[in-house]
Amino acid sequence: MSYLGVGVSPGNVPVYHGSNLKVVDRRVRLVELVLRCLICGLAVLAAVLIGSDTQVKTIFGVQKRAKFTDMKALVFLVVANGLAAAYSLVQGLRCVVSMVRGSVLFSKPLAWAIFSCDQLMTYLTLAAVAAAAQSAVYAKLGQPELQWMKICNMYGKFCNQVGEGIASALIVSLSMVVLSGISAFSLFRLYGENKGKNSARW
Amino acid sequence: MSYLGVGVSPGNVPVYHGSNLKVVDRRVRLVELVLRCLICGLAVLAAVLIGSDTQVKTIFGVQKRAKFTDMKALVFLVVANGLAAAYSLVQGLRCVVSMVRGSVLFSKPLAWAIFSCDQLMTYLTLAAVAAAAQSAVYAKLGQPELQWMKICNMYGKFCNQVGEGIASALIVSLSMVVLSGISAFSLFRLYGENKGKNSARW
Repeated sequence: MSYLGVGVSPGNVPVYHGSNLKVVDRRVRLVELVLRCLICGLAVLAAVLIGSDTQVKTIFGVQKRAKFTDMKALVFLVVANGLAAAYSLVQGLRCVVSMVRGSVLFSKPLAWAIFSCDQLMTYLTLAAVAAAAQSAVYAKLGQPELQWMKICNMYGKFCNQVGEGIASALIVSLSMVVLSGISAFSLFRLYGENKGKNSARW
Repeated sequence: MSYLGVGVSPGNVPVYHGSNLKVVDRRVRLVELVLRCLICGLAVLAAVLIGSDTQVKTIFGVQKRAKFTDMKALVFLVVANGLAAAYSLVQGLRCVVSMVRGSVLFSKPLAWAIFSCDQLMTYLTLAAVAAAAQSAVYAKLGQPELQWMKICNMYGKFCNQVGEGIASALIVSLSMVVLSGISAFSLFRLYGENKGKNSARW
């Protein structure tokens, strides 16, 4: 590969460094691809579970319908998971292309872009899960001090489905945490300056 | 420094690499120290603002007192910011010690520990802010579909102080985001394998 010789005389770069790098890179890329597919699937599942959730109850002769738009936190969760699914699809395709080509990520601007987007999506999905989980706690337990009443004893089926959606979204955000670790690794190893010691130790 | 020669013949490691590394490391350490101090101060401020917040109202002859424990999300925020403050204090001291000694972070287990703790604290503070912000939105605007009423028109002063606390906690979590980027850099650059090209380009 051309990058191995730039600015360093050939004798300073043993061949195993290059193949070692490629093996690590291939494994990292594979884990990344699996995670991106998982995120894409689970984010769609979470968005569909919550977005399609509805329950009709007749209370004192009046029909009331519970839907996810009644709670802004759930709208935020659906939007965040929709974005995460679309983003993971695009990134998954990038992974497949670079695996097929066998290329190693060595462009700093691209690594920075992937790192920044991964970080952003991680914080976005995590914040959405936290807000939705907090709302779910209020819906399940109420907050008697503020006279916010429980609604899950009225809309049991609705609440259960929301719970499944939040669980799915939680796995999405935990996978995003791992992924942003991977993209941090892919970016910042490009700034390494102590090749000799570390390749000997790990 | 002893790490510069291990596994590489002396001719392969120009002196500017070592000093370059130390300059970068000193700057990174300085930014880290400033951020850790900022976080420590603002996290204490957020915890005090929210923890000490209280307002008494007489409604139909009955005295009612609003306090932060009425809302579980605020308790979570106070705890998360207390932890962030204590953690930043310890890490800040570590920064000062290593700046005084002039040592460069080169222990992978230590770098992994710092990275993991920073990540954990970042996600913890961010989740706490998201949950508290969601609760604040309900308190400010209510959620008429669920018959959760606004409480901020009753407890205006209480809500304002909570708002200031959440703003302070938001800056804490954004600073933690930058810090976890820095600790990712400090860790993963230890895995760099392409010294020649990158030190020539950046």
